[in-house]
Amino acid sequence: MSTTNVKAFGTGAPDAPLAPINIERRDVLPNDIEIEILYCGVCHSDLHTARNDWGFTTYPTVPGHEIVGKVTRVGSAVTKLKVGDVAAVGCLVDSCRTCSSCKQDLEQYCLNGWVGTYNSEDKHLGGMTYGGYSEKIVVDENYVLTVPPNLDLAAVAPLLCAGITTWSPLRHWKVTKGSKVAVVGLGGLGHMAIKLAKGLGAEVTLFSRTPGKEKDAKQLGADAVIISTDEAQMATVAGKFDVIIDTVPYVHDVNPYITTLCISGTLVLVGYLGGLDPILNTVPMIMGRKSVAASLIGGIAETQEMLNFCGEHNIVSEIEIIKMQDINQAYERMLKSDVRYRFVIDMASLKG
Amino acid sequence: MSTTNVKAFGTGAPDAPLAPINIERRDVLPNDIEIEILYCGVCHSDLHTARNDWGFTTYPTVPGHEIVGKVTRVGSAVTKLKVGDVAAVGCLVDSCRTCSSCKQDLEQYCLNGWVGTYNSEDKHLGGMTYGGYSEKIVVDENYVLTVPPNLDLAAVAPLLCAGITTWSPLRHWKVTKGSKVAVVGLGGLGHMAIKLAKGLGAEVTLFSRTPGKEKDAKQLGADAVIISTDEAQMATVAGKFDVIIDTVPYVHDVNPYITTLCISGTLVLVGYLGGLDPILNTVPMIMGRKSVAASLIGGIAETQEMLNFCGEHNIVSEIEIIKMQDINQAYERMLKSDVRYRFVIDMASLKG
Repeated sequence: MSTTNVKAFGTGAPDAPLAPINIERRDVLPNDIEIEILYCGVCHSDLHTARNDWGFTTYPTVPGHEIVGKVTRVGSAVTKLKVGDVAAVGCLVDSCRTCSSCKQDLEQYCLNGWVGTYNSEDKHLGGMTYGGYSEKIVVDENYVLTVPPNLDLAAVAPLLCAGITTWSPLRHWKVTKGSKVAVVGLGGLGHMAIKLAKGLGAEVTLFSRTPGKEKDAKQLGADAVIISTDEAQMATVAGKFDVIIDTVPYVHDVNPYITTLCISGTLVLVGYLGGLDPILNTVPMIMGRKSVAASLIGGIAETQEMLNFCGEHNIVSEIEIIKMQDINQAYERMLKSDVRYRFVIDMASLKG
Repeated sequence: MSTTNVKAFGTGAPDAPLAPINIERRDVLPNDIEIEILYCGVCHSDLHTARNDWGFTTYPTVPGHEIVGKVTRVGSAVTKLKVGDVAAVGCLVDSCRTCSSCKQDLEQYCLNGWVGTYNSEDKHLGGMTYGGYSEKIVVDENYVLTVPPNLDLAAVAPLLCAGITTWSPLRHWKVTKGSKVAVVGLGGLGHMAIKLAKGLGAEVTLFSRTPGKEKDAKQLGADAVIISTDEAQMATVAGKFDVIIDTVPYVHDVNPYITTLCISGTLVLVGYLGGLDPILNTVPMIMGRKSVAASLIGGIAETQEMLNFCGEHNIVSEIEIIKMQDINQAYERMLKSDVRYRFVIDMASLKG
């Protein structure tokens, strides 16, 4: 298969900083779109993968799955986009397309394993897929999104992961005008959850462990902020929320939030992978038919729906633009939650 | 308030056996129905309350909330039933009627606290409510159910708790023809879950920890039995079930069952009150948008719906009839799961 050599930023070991490497991209197949990457958001998963925190990184690895760019080539059968159009790619670039999940537009739950934008087996070239910290990417048009023309392209990039990860549960658990939604945590995911829930017409409350976020949260659209460690404040929202989007990425006690769900309400974990410790108590759940659920990104159709919704409601991420060469410092700042609210790499810097 | 003295069976202390006592029943108020109790099912909650296992029993206590009987008197405003009709009473005899739960026919989640059939504050007489281990009970007609004429009355009694406890989650989580339902545990609740899910048209699997239940489960309507401790058998149902009704009343590991849920599936706990130990792992949940929920009995309208459904589908509980005087031995046998599948007291024995 003919390929093109492109510049990228990646790492060959968990303890090595990200640095320039060269990778191959396949030349376009009939259904492929080649995209010159303009902006790539920086997700916590990028850092976890670069450092092998989950134990399944194959090196070298090139992270990045919040991709916005311009179409530079299209395959002979492509109808979705043409050269010069703006295009976006999120967390997945392929799936089996035949299982019951794929047939329901739930590619993120593909029963045969979806192909991640990075660190997945590359069906075409062998080896692993390489992500958006690169000049170009080639993706089957069925996994490429279109971008509403009115949105700032750099600030669109985080919608491809942080946006869809919070959008999907808001939609699945039927958040609509008048719904009462709480968001746990004010990071990349949390700030998008606030904006999207507000866009859907919900009354939105931020749960935060630390005071001082009120002004920021309200600027993002939150109606209220509750300090979750303050029992008196927590009591004021007992039984209130239809849906809680819990974006906290580390182990934490969800029991206090359960008490703030209304009858038949659901707490959805979107950030934490692991055991619920302290243990989940079923008593407050059974006394109100409450659920604890978890949700993973979203399907392609749902991602497009979210992008279109963001276009209609003028919703983008709050970002800090960095150069590709600053990625290692950005990771260190992410580890300290020192970002409001998402780093986005200006990929023009990779050419320099 | 004028009252009638009636015979009952109750206990004055957690370590005392149940024995005859006399209690007062109010004379009928305009909306009240007086019922001569013909049959009363024996629920695990009766035993837990008699022995103060949950720590909130007020003595003396008279258990029993699976009540079927004949109307002996009606208040002046009663329209639902007349003297001589068959009537039934379940776990709750009143609620606030004004909160958002009550207004949605979710009296079991009454925000101001529903009045349990026993061991709740009695609004009329003071003291505590007394349950169905008694000659008669007086209940507001809004909390009295009607019974389809074709069903065996003794075998109807357990529908009032075991039946509705499993019916409500089957309905809330939209089990219908073709749904794939699993039931964990084959006791009073479990055997009703199988019958009701089957009645709704589902394909029903029983999870059991011990072999030997296949024949019984299939007679009840199960299509398959999976030994949950057998990893090879569990692998055959990975990702299969839309809804799992978990009836196990003691602490147990729910993680193996999560893997058998399909994408967007829900495991509903209806038997266990306490902490989920071993801890619940969110990884298999997030990889399939799965939920863990809990559900408590059902509302009055839903209980009537269930009774009507049982009438149409000829569904009743499998029971063993006992005399009132045998209740203490029955409790001992329940503790050893030595009952197929519900004891029902023939209340005529109380007169003897």
